[in-house]
Amino acid sequence: MRLFSTAKLVAGLLVASVFITGAMAADNMKIDHNKIVALSEAGVFGQFNTYKINSNYYKLSQAERDEAVKEVEALVKKHSDSVRVDAYLTRGLESESDFLFRVNGYDPSLVQKFLYCFKATTIGRYSDITFAINGITKGLNHATKEKAPALLDALKSTKYSEKPPKYAFVLPITKNAVWWNKTENEKLALMKDHTIPTLPFLVNINRKLYHSTGIDDADWITYFETNDLKAFNDLNIKLFSVSENLDNVRYGKPTIMGQIMPVADVFQKLSK
Amino acid sequence: MRLFSTAKLVAGLLVASVFITGAMAADNMKIDHNKIVALSEAGVFGQFNTYKINSNYYKLSQAERDEAVKEVEALVKKHSDSVRVDAYLTRGLESESDFLFRVNGYDPSLVQKFLYCFKATTIGRYSDITFAINGITKGLNHATKEKAPALLDALKSTKYSEKPPKYAFVLPITKNAVWWNKTENEKLALMKDHTIPTLPFLVNINRKLYHSTGIDDADWITYFETNDLKAFNDLNIKLFSVSENLDNVRYGKPTIMGQIMPVADVFQKLSK
Amino acid sequence: MRLFSTAKLVAGLLVASVFITGAMAADNMKIDHNKIVALSEAGVFGQFNTYKINSNYYKLSQAERDEAVKEVEALVKKHSDSVRVDAYLTRGLESESDFLFRVNGYDPSLVQKFLYCFKATTIGRYSDITFAINGITKGLNHATKEKAPALLDALKSTKYSEKPPKYAFVLPITKNAVWWNKTENEKLALMKDHTIPTLPFLVNINRKLYHSTGIDDADWITYFETNDLKAFNDLNIKLFSVSENLDNVRYGKPTIMGQIMPVADVFQKLSK
Amino acid sequence: MRLFSTAKLVAGLLVASVFITGAMAADNMKIDHNKIVALSEAGVFGQFNTYKINSNYYKLSQAERDEAVKEVEALVKKHSDSVRVDAYLTRGLESESDFLFRVNGYDPSLVQKFLYCFKATTIGRYSDITFAINGITKGLNHATKEKAPALLDALKSTKYSEKPPKYAFVLPITKNAVWWNKTENEKLALMKDHTIPTLPFLVNINRKLYHSTGIDDADWITYFETNDLKAFNDLNIKLFSVSENLDNVRYGKPTIMGQIMPVADVFQKLSK
Amino acid sequence: MRLFSTAKLVAGLLVASVFITGAMAADNMKIDHNKIVALSEAGVFGQFNTYKINSNYYKLSQAERDEAVKEVEALVKKHSDSVRVDAYLTRGLESESDFLFRVNGYDPSLVQKFLYCFKATTIGRYSDITFAINGITKGLNHATKEKAPALLDALKSTKYSEKPPKYAFVLPITKNAVWWNKTENEKLALMKDHTIPTLPFLVNINRKLYHSTGIDDADWITYFETNDLKAFNDLNIKLFSVSENLDNVRYGKPTIMGQIMPVADVFQKLSK
Repeated sequence: MRLFSTAKLVAGLLVASVFITGAMAADNMKIDHNKIVALSEAGVFGQFNTYKINSNYYKLSQAERDEAVKEVEALVKKHSDSVRVDAYLTRGLESESDFLFRVNGYDPSLVQKFLYCFKATTIGRYSDITFAINGITKGLNHATKEKAPALLDALKSTKYSEKPPKYAFVLPITKNAVWWNKTENEKLALMKDHTIPTLPFLVNINRKLYHSTGIDDADWITYFETNDLKAFNDLNIKLFSVSENLDNVRYGKPTIMGQIMPVADVFQKLSK
Repeated sequence: MRLFSTAKLVAGLLVASVFITGAMAADNMKIDHNKIVALSEAGVFGQFNTYKINSNYYKLSQAERDEAVKEVEALVKKHSDSVRVDAYLTRGLESESDFLFRVNGYDPSLVQKFLYCFKATTIGRYSDITFAINGITKGLNHATKEKAPALLDALKSTKYSEKPPKYAFVLPITKNAVWWNKTENEKLALMKDHTIPTLPFLVNINRKLYHSTGIDDADWITYFETNDLKAFNDLNIKLFSVSENLDNVRYGKPTIMGQIMPVADVFQKLSK
Repeated sequence: MRLFSTAKLVAGLLVASVFITGAMAADNMKIDHNKIVALSEAGVFGQFNTYKINSNYYKLSQAERDEAVKEVEALVKKHSDSVRVDAYLTRGLESESDFLFRVNGYDPSLVQKFLYCFKATTIGRYSDITFAINGITKGLNHATKEKAPALLDALKSTKYSEKPPKYAFVLPITKNAVWWNKTENEKLALMKDHTIPTLPFLVNINRKLYHSTGIDDADWITYFETNDLKAFNDLNIKLFSVSENLDNVRYGKPTIMGQIMPVADVFQKLSK
Repeated sequence: MRLFSTAKLVAGLLVASVFITGAMAADNMKIDHNKIVALSEAGVFGQFNTYKINSNYYKLSQAERDEAVKEVEALVKKHSDSVRVDAYLTRGLESESDFLFRVNGYDPSLVQKFLYCFKATTIGRYSDITFAINGITKGLNHATKEKAPALLDALKSTKYSEKPPKYAFVLPITKNAVWWNKTENEKLALMKDHTIPTLPFLVNINRKLYHSTGIDDADWITYFETNDLKAFNDLNIKLFSVSENLDNVRYGKPTIMGQIMPVADVFQKLSK
Repeated sequence: MRLFSTAKLVAGLLVASVFITGAMAADNMKIDHNKIVALSEAGVFGQFNTYKINSNYYKLSQAERDEAVKEVEALVKKHSDSVRVDAYLTRGLESESDFLFRVNGYDPSLVQKFLYCFKATTIGRYSDITFAINGITKGLNHATKEKAPALLDALKSTKYSEKPPKYAFVLPITKNAVWWNKTENEKLALMKDHTIPTLPFLVNINRKLYHSTGIDDADWITYFETNDLKAFNDLNIKLFSVSENLDNVRYGKPTIMGQIMPVADVFQKLSK
């Protein structure tokens, strides 16, 4: 099952550009973990789910809980050809969750399959899902090579160059109808407006973008990784201080902060 | 019990057109599954309910759970003369639910009957309803043959022509009082505005409309089926980028995404 | 205890008209079921409560549940001198409830008494109240005989003339401060504006009004009964399409739809 | 511990008037129940909490529940030197609660002490707190003897003169920044505007005001007692129909209605 | 793990000043409790979490509960090199919680570690987290020595000089995009506007500020300590009455009030 079918489009009406990437070359294709974690391809479906472990889990013996951690680890491995699973410890930082899953894949039904299989594990049975949001990667809508070559060059030349980041942040963003009704050129100008002040921060903050308009109750899911909370706060202040922010009607709500950890570590810490 | 009674209208005051269709020809009439799934008739009542299965269900043995799946399958069959039941797997994609029912019928009380009988099944007992919304089909309010013949022709000539769709989306939509206070001609113009850019997408996205104003807390329930999430995202961006969107006060919230499956498959996957 | 006491008013300051009706003639007066269901009197207190039955109820034997139904039936009868109880099946149509009570009486404390006694029945013990709203009937604020004789005549001459209605809808309505700050004449004009287009619908839709400003978190509770959902949708579209709607800040939320049934029938259906 | 410490104020900057009343004369002072119920003093801390009794309470025997009622009665008596406890039956009228406590005292920590001791009683253990809001009494901000002598005289000369009131209403109120940015004279004018039309209602409606800005999520808690729901509805319509209402951003939400009863009566009714 | 990494910034684009303080001099540095409670350093991460104890805790024997209190006390001591834990009793004052933790440290992962270790204690197991918000301290954005020397002097010369404060208040604050789009000078002017009227209150109200933009769903967390609720109410009225308040879109929600107590005292009171 491919995420994108080749649409037979009514001639003359279609203006949206169509991205045909490697992700769409074959059914049930194996994922390339390096590529999918980089989100360098269009056509990636990403599901962000948070969960809370209910108190009955802790009535199991420590041995049973240790076994339960291994079960999740094995499940992630089993599905690793079709989905990339990232896990984050949110307990202590968030009221609504103990952990966060970010699951990336080309085929939404295989992403879903991992997640309903997880629900059937011991830890899944004792966990309640508390938030879910999804989106897709695609080519940039506005900042294309033709229209904004300098901006794209700056973006490319500014790479994360710090120690591996320890914290991740997930913030859904929604714009109002006024913004959506602007022309492409107006949107491009605003895009530059908000991107340029953030460039200095890209050396120690990673950023990924998923598109969700119509697919879920947000326009975008922005995902960040960093070690430097002050830089992250300053970056957001930059984003708040441009005129484009006047058209933001959702920014966070929730803002999810988690500690980046291997899957087994997250569940070991939650199993003590 | 018919959905529509023949209203004895106060002469001279009624301007709303009355749709008398086959659906209203007889009491307790049998539904025609092809017609009702196409929603080609006015007078169809549609109920969309999501449910979450509570953890005690999984304390039943696998055999009991397998039996429970058959029980729902039999119930759907038993009611198939009066209601059409579609089921969707939402676990993993949604936080608020594990599955979605869409139940269509001519008689709301028979739609309700199926649903309270479902609640009395084993799976129903272990399921909590988490969202419910309903609406009716009726003739288009504005884009009539007389007023918009070209648009209607374009709509008719653009048919879904892809592999059977795998994903469904349910989005309630509400407009503000400014929109409702526009004249019929203004509304028709806006309608064209938002419909024309979406025509290219109809080849790989199915769309159905239910009217809910006053019946439930939305003006319309829009229901979509597709295999192509990027096309669906692009379609929604088109709908967001027309001026009519300035008068949308609800669009989704919730946006429900489910995988389209036979009823038995949905519950088998949830019963493992 | 009478709902209305005879206020000793500060002379010269009181402008609100005082309605002294039969309902206020005597303490602990017996209700007249015909009058109270017609709400033709001012001075009626109406309480609308929805409930959800929790799953433990179904661990009782069928015999115990049958007994539980009879217990509620007997309670309603016992209180029938002081309150009129209407019951509605909402299971399947609503996510937040299984049934709705509408309890009308002259004395709020006797309405409350029925409801806390209900809570002490078997079904009451297993039911959680999920929504509650109340209001009172009183003379029309604006459309009086002197100011709007033609409108009142039209209202009186248009009576429900269909088969007994099967569905009820409850919609709380709240207006903003702009509306409340209009003059009496402006309000009367708006009242006519919204009433005239609805007259044709009164032949197959019943409508009752309760006043709630300050008493509860809405200005009015509108209660409807009908068999014809399309007519009801069209009626609401009329109400949405007048300028008065610009000042509505709440319309529904929740919109509660229930099937009208004798009390015993509601609980029998919920007890299987 | 006194509620108000004698602030050593930075000279020349302080404009707020300071109310030094009898309530602040001594630490741990005994409350005077007549004064504190009248709220005639500044410096009273009032806590309004609603609670719902969970179903397990009714698994206790009737004798145990009778004992539980006496336990609360004794606790109220034990704390009567430091706090005044008023109780209200809300079951049947409200979905979110079964009863309401209003606890007044000079010392917030003693008010809190009564409430955490209540939580340790049998009924407290089986009760979940569902809403909490607090505020303080202080001198009127705007309508002082110097600025509005006629208004104050009218307020003083209009006393509740009916049978003891049976119903209480609690409504939190919040104004927007536009209102808060008005000058003192503008605020005084608005204050007169809203007070004068309400004077006729004071003969059968009691009203008390608590200030909450910054202390809790409202600007004021308004507390009313009456027998006459129509008068109360009319009073609120007066308050809604003045221009000041344009700056109200919260009015109720929740509006809590309870029946005024001795503490023991409330819990006896809830214990059957 | 340090909170702040030394960012390699893209030259010429960075305008935000960078605060390099003692807090960032070494990895896993021991905290200085005097400094960290004063929040006199930039680079402090603060986590505010509220919890509710569920009723099953009270099924433990008193001896077990006494032991549970000691367990938390020991945990706080064990982590005292890396985090400062303050505890507050909220039961009786708040509906959503029984107690509040404020945990300050230089390293967010060590703050989180204390909190997930707390969750593994007996009291932690029986407690549900109900609200969580975090932020960081940093140098003042606008009121710098260069730009506002007089204001800074006034702030420094006004110190809390009363008996140890008994009550703490936590209020998240968010400003709208209009405010964020103002120039630095405009923001500085507004800052003075709101700070000057509050100076007289600093003698009996402590105030601390955490920055949260992008890190959590608020722009700032304001934390107050006082004995004088009337002064605190008056202080807030000052903050509400300046034009800057026109751009506040969140102020509280929740406003959390707790009684300041040693950790052991909080849990002893909750364990009876």
